[in-house]
Amino acid sequence: MNLQFILVETSHPGNIGAAARAIRTMGFFNLTLVNPQQYPDPQIDALASHATDVVETIRVVDTFQEAIAGCDLVIGTSARSRTLPWPMLSPKDLIPPILARQPHSIAIVFGREDRGLSNDELAACHFHVQIPTSESYMSLNLAQAVQVIAYELFALGSAVPVSPDLYEPRATAEKMQGFYAHMERVLLRIGYLDPRRPKKLKERLQRLFQRAELEDSEVDLLRGIFTRMECKLDGEKSS
Amino acid sequence: MNLQFILVETSHPGNIGAAARAIRTMGFFNLTLVNPQQYPDPQIDALASHATDVVETIRVVDTFQEAIAGCDLVIGTSARSRTLPWPMLSPKDLIPPILARQPHSIAIVFGREDRGLSNDELAACHFHVQIPTSESYMSLNLAQAVQVIAYELFALGSAVPVSPDLYEPRATAEKMQGFYAHMERVLLRIGYLDPRRPKKLKERLQRLFQRAELEDSEVDLLRGIFTRMECKLDGEKSS
Repeated sequence: MNLQFILVETSHPGNIGAAARAIRTMGFFNLTLVNPQQYPDPQIDALASHATDVVETIRVVDTFQEAIAGCDLVIGTSARSRTLPWPMLSPKDLIPPILARQPHSIAIVFGREDRGLSNDELAACHFHVQIPTSESYMSLNLAQAVQVIAYELFALGSAVPVSPDLYEPRATAEKMQGFYAHMERVLLRIGYLDPRRPKKLKERLQRLFQRAELEDSEVDLLRGIFTRMECKLDGEKSS
Repeated sequence: MNLQFILVETSHPGNIGAAARAIRTMGFFNLTLVNPQQYPDPQIDALASHATDVVETIRVVDTFQEAIAGCDLVIGTSARSRTLPWPMLSPKDLIPPILARQPHSIAIVFGREDRGLSNDELAACHFHVQIPTSESYMSLNLAQAVQVIAYELFALGSAVPVSPDLYEPRATAEKMQGFYAHMERVLLRIGYLDPRRPKKLKERLQRLFQRAELEDSEVDLLRGIFTRMECKLDGEKSS
């Protein structure tokens, strides 16, 4: 089971270094940065202390989609509940759902220091996790949030899977993005989705399919339906 | 129930600020510094973000004993097991023993960045708590350790005591120090404690009494025995 921590558009390089150290103390090594504001930067190494094996293997990508490509379980951290509720986990309840799903590759995603993750990014997650904080002061530092989640995932290193053959392989994030793009094309074409009045329709559908945790073959099945419909429409147009 | 976080001889003011922010996010306010290397310092405010209610009420004292005076439950963080084993708690198991004991005033103590707590300081604790870390990289940053412990104690704010009238009031740390000093005088006087070959005798006795979590009246009782013994020796000498 591969697990990576993803930091999206981090402003302060010190937070990257402190996050590297935080995950390393808990036995994790993979850190991906999406479009960091300052990278490389001497502050990263300074704050990472001696977690050089993490820092030297940092992966930097341009987009969130690139970062989660290939991941079959995506967990996003969120400081507040959104307009559209998503399957929510407490940090203390992270490990059982991971073990039950037997993912090949997990992404744990952390948003920007000031604004967190965007609605689009949150909609690409299977679960949201929220660290409980004081109502009167919810300003958890980014590296501290990484530390808490890494701390809660520590036992994953020694955990034994609960039900190895329960699931077929899940669709990767990349595959799901292709699926959503396909669905959107079809919905626009059939006039179900009105670009001038989208009514959160895409977000709602995405929530449904993320929650369903589609297997690889199920995505193929659904895309088969879309393709069939498109052919049909092409046929009608040409007839 | 009063709870304070105590940082002993912290080197980097940034860690003090980050610790202030960390405890504030989890609903705690009381931070005590024992002989900090740089205080006040603008880095404290910078790293504390807007946790001003914690920073402005920071208490600074000269000695560890002053810091824990009045506390009837002292929990020390320790990165490694010591030569003399002490009652040990995992961070996840902190709350039940606290609720069961109904302390009036709790101290959670964090040591120096490079060397942690001294053996004397650890011996003044009722429990040690150790945050699990990777075997190959155990270098947890001070403020991160504070964050993890504060995070685990978050639920204390809303927790309901389990057995309100189970215990009599416990002796405070101050009272226990007076007791240990008295015991040492007596042990030296009767020749049981040999200052040239102390054989960890004091540490062993202290472990025993810390573990017993003496009630206030029990300390009085034991000191009564010491006093009686001293009177007896005085009498023999003068006779």
